Amino acid sequence: MSVATESPPLERLRTALAEIADLNHAESVLDWDSRVSMPHRGALARAHATGTLTRLAHEKFVADEIGDLLEGLRATEEEAGPDSFDGALIRVTRREWERARRVPPELAGEISHAAGIAVAAWDEAKAASDFPSFVPQLERMLELKQRYIECFPPRDSRYDIALDEYEEGMTTADVTAIFDRLKPELIGLIERHRDDPRDDSAFRGPFSVTAQQEAGRRVLEAFGFNDEEWRIDETPHPFAQKPGVGDIRLTTHTDERDLTSLFSTMHEFGHGIYEYSVDPAFARTPLGGGTSSSIHESQSRTWENLVGRSHGFWRWFYPQLQQLFPQKLGAVDEASFVRSVNAIRPGALRGDADEVTYGLHIILRFELELQLLAGTVSVRDLPGAWNAATKEYLGVDVPDDAHGVLQDMHWSIGLIGYFPTYQLGNVISVQIWERARADLGEVEDQFSRGEFGPLREWLTEHVYRHGGMYAPRALLERVTGSDIDPEPYLAYLQAKFD
Amino acid sequence: MSVATESPPLERLRTALAEIADLNHAESVLDWDSRVSMPHRGALARAHATGTLTRLAHEKFVADEIGDLLEGLRATEEEAGPDSFDGALIRVTRREWERARRVPPELAGEISHAAGIAVAAWDEAKAASDFPSFVPQLERMLELKQRYIECFPPRDSRYDIALDEYEEGMTTADVTAIFDRLKPELIGLIERHRDDPRDDSAFRGPFSVTAQQEAGRRVLEAFGFNDEEWRIDETPHPFAQKPGVGDIRLTTHTDERDLTSLFSTMHEFGHGIYEYSVDPAFARTPLGGGTSSSIHESQSRTWENLVGRSHGFWRWFYPQLQQLFPQKLGAVDEASFVRSVNAIRPGALRGDADEVTYGLHIILRFELELQLLAGTVSVRDLPGAWNAATKEYLGVDVPDDAHGVLQDMHWSIGLIGYFPTYQLGNVISVQIWERARADLGEVEDQFSRGEFGPLREWLTEHVYRHGGMYAPRALLERVTGSDIDPEPYLAYLQAKFD
Repeated sequence: MSVATESPPLERLRTALAEIADLNHAESVLDWDSRVSMPHRGALARAHATGTLTRLAHEKFVADEIGDLLEGLRATEEEAGPDSFDGALIRVTRREWERARRVPPELAGEISHAAGIAVAAWDEAKAASDFPSFVPQLERMLELKQRYIECFPPRDSRYDIALDEYEEGMTTADVTAIFDRLKPELIGLIERHRDDPRDDSAFRGPFSVTAQQEAGRRVLEAFGFNDEEWRIDETPHPFAQKPGVGDIRLTTHTDERDLTSLFSTMHEFGHGIYEYSVDPAFARTPLGGGTSSSIHESQSRTWENLVGRSHGFWRWFYPQLQQLFPQKLGAVDEASFVRSVNAIRPGALRGDADEVTYGLHIILRFELELQLLAGTVSVRDLPGAWNAATKEYLGVDVPDDAHGVLQDMHWSIGLIGYFPTYQLGNVISVQIWERARADLGEVEDQFSRGEFGPLREWLTEHVYRHGGMYAPRALLERVTGSDIDPEPYLAYLQAKFD
Repeated sequence: MSVATESPPLERLRTALAEIADLNHAESVLDWDSRVSMPHRGALARAHATGTLTRLAHEKFVADEIGDLLEGLRATEEEAGPDSFDGALIRVTRREWERARRVPPELAGEISHAAGIAVAAWDEAKAASDFPSFVPQLERMLELKQRYIECFPPRDSRYDIALDEYEEGMTTADVTAIFDRLKPELIGLIERHRDDPRDDSAFRGPFSVTAQQEAGRRVLEAFGFNDEEWRIDETPHPFAQKPGVGDIRLTTHTDERDLTSLFSTMHEFGHGIYEYSVDPAFARTPLGGGTSSSIHESQSRTWENLVGRSHGFWRWFYPQLQQLFPQKLGAVDEASFVRSVNAIRPGALRGDADEVTYGLHIILRFELELQLLAGTVSVRDLPGAWNAATKEYLGVDVPDDAHGVLQDMHWSIGLIGYFPTYQLGNVISVQIWERARADLGEVEDQFSRGEFGPLREWLTEHVYRHGGMYAPRALLERVTGSDIDPEPYLAYLQAKFD
């Protein structure tokens, strides 16, 4: 891109960032397409195209010119202040530029290439429940992650550097403190409710796929989905994506065996509505998406759990669901159904976990990641360590590695330091929720009338519209007046389950 | 892209071209997505992203470095010879590079920007049948096209330069000679058959959309479509696209009023199978697609008309079609149905034209384009000239501009010089067809058994696999031993319709 040297530096920075955002837009559509639309055998050509886009975007971003512009904009940043768009744009761009510059392009290329190989190996290993076949690839990814970490100045813990990639300003010590507080409480909750009587009405299929999709659409439309700006498709692993303003894409996975697709749809809606509601003036800048992984997850969890498993929500929606599934649900009363979607059900799979057991799945992964990076557990020893922790925390025997250490794709693509943000999101979701309820009054009464606009607008005003302007903890401080704090979350779980 | 200077020049050229091909891959997916998947309000963000990809691909292609490499490869090109991949790659890249270098980036940008505005204006003008509202945009596009033409050395006709953009080696004089030969013959055919009795069984819907789609899938699968490498979707204006190897995308438009979607599907299959069958070794080079617009169109017409309207094809498929539409077609015999899809039906719309009237729709457009570029007809006078020619050639009164001068989108996006390639494709299709029949024997007997493999393989061997290696007339010479020649086409039409 030829950036005309006469324009003011901030304008030149924005022009350069807009071009990079356009490359990211293309990459996002290619990624969505490869998971939703692309014929299977188009994968090799697609890998080339995606690789080129990623490399071009990276090369353009780490250019000296961006660094020179950022250097020249220090006075502007200070003058504008951190609460202004300009100030935030310069701050965030500098943080990302400095991180990106530390990683040599060759290493970034090696990681991306090795991830492509390792995710395919993981896929096969999982299908065959054959962990040993995956060991060399996982060892390679771990070695590359260590080299990545060594590009940065030493911190208290190597893990700090891995974590900082996904969650600005969060340290290993912070996470450890929070998880240490949660772990015994979660284990205690499970113990106390292990022998509760359980209603399984939501999990005794078959439930027609078409009727489930209709249920999903009705809920989405009440939440704020519209066909002019959103779409929803089926994929094996649900996700949400925003290629650009006015283009929000959700996916879900509808399985006739149970009704979990409905919760997955609400989860992805939470990711989608966050990105949808970012101030459109932030388009084509690094501020145009959510601010961090944990804040994003807090919002998917809000719509899936705090809204979607609430009594108010089901007072509105259960009669409709009964109409869609008269034979299955006609004789099940609302209270039983709500109990069935809120039961504690310890199991081996994170993907099937309820609100209580979910946290322990994450804590287990966090602890193993720490040990992997510290070298106190080897890749070969992972299955044993995994199965022991699952037994200890959840009281569950892992039937095989496909349902154990191989269940998640994350490590194969180098996502080490990412899992904790899922549970931090759960913690944060309740902090923001309490604040919203304090302002909005009886939100569940609103839900029971199918009214989700007030909550959505409150979240837009306080969280969503700010996009990437504020670092996650600064945003949380603005919204709740507090740093990240597990107590509201624990109180919520105890009130709900005890 | 950092092209390592130690590699041999040809390898460096291929690396640079592969990167540009990857950007084109992304552009192709974005274009497909915007027509098939994108939520409506994503258009503005998409326009930015597409604009950036187009500009980057253009900047990279016109770089001095590519010119230096091409200069250094003159000896290699001569040594390799024009029938080799290396020789053809250098020849084709040089031709495109020299053309691209002549157009200043500012002008290319102006054309692309003006096209975006003009196509929107055309869309509204067509909906309202309001040609005057479209005049300023069309005048602007025409002015830009004139400026584009002035970037090139003068030729016998200004139109030669416009034509050469889509059809290498074709001149205005060649087209005029062919069209002058066709015009009176086509008009004569229409006159002779104006009062023939007509069976309209294929055009008296409603025909269920689902059953039509099933018919289309059955035909496609017999032709060579498979789900691993192809897909088909519905769009208002059908098209075919190949983002990359193993990824062929067709679209069709199924309307319950008649069965034309089936022919549209076969037409797009012809475009798809051409690109699908290009030697995969040509991937990520300028030789990886079809060689020209007319050769492409010859193949879409082959599968739509020469195969899809043949007696042999319907001997195989008509019983299946009757089973899909027992109420509509149960009582219509095969011969009547074949007559109904082969009748001459003069009308105002090119999109609905049969094999005979189609050529006159194109000749009319070609003549007006010549006059527009020569300045002998003004944009304002177009509707009158259009309607008069439609009356003279087809004997048809144009009801309004939406069904006349506004019916096609092409001019709004600057496609002047493109229409003739449609009719050249019809002419060429029969030349290649005659050659295939000479080699394959009774192809219609094969079709009547649902066997399309022999024809497809013959076309792959003689035409498709060569991709962009040979210029269109050189390819035709290789395949048929002859230059472009309207006589086989005329003989085919006379044998069929007289």
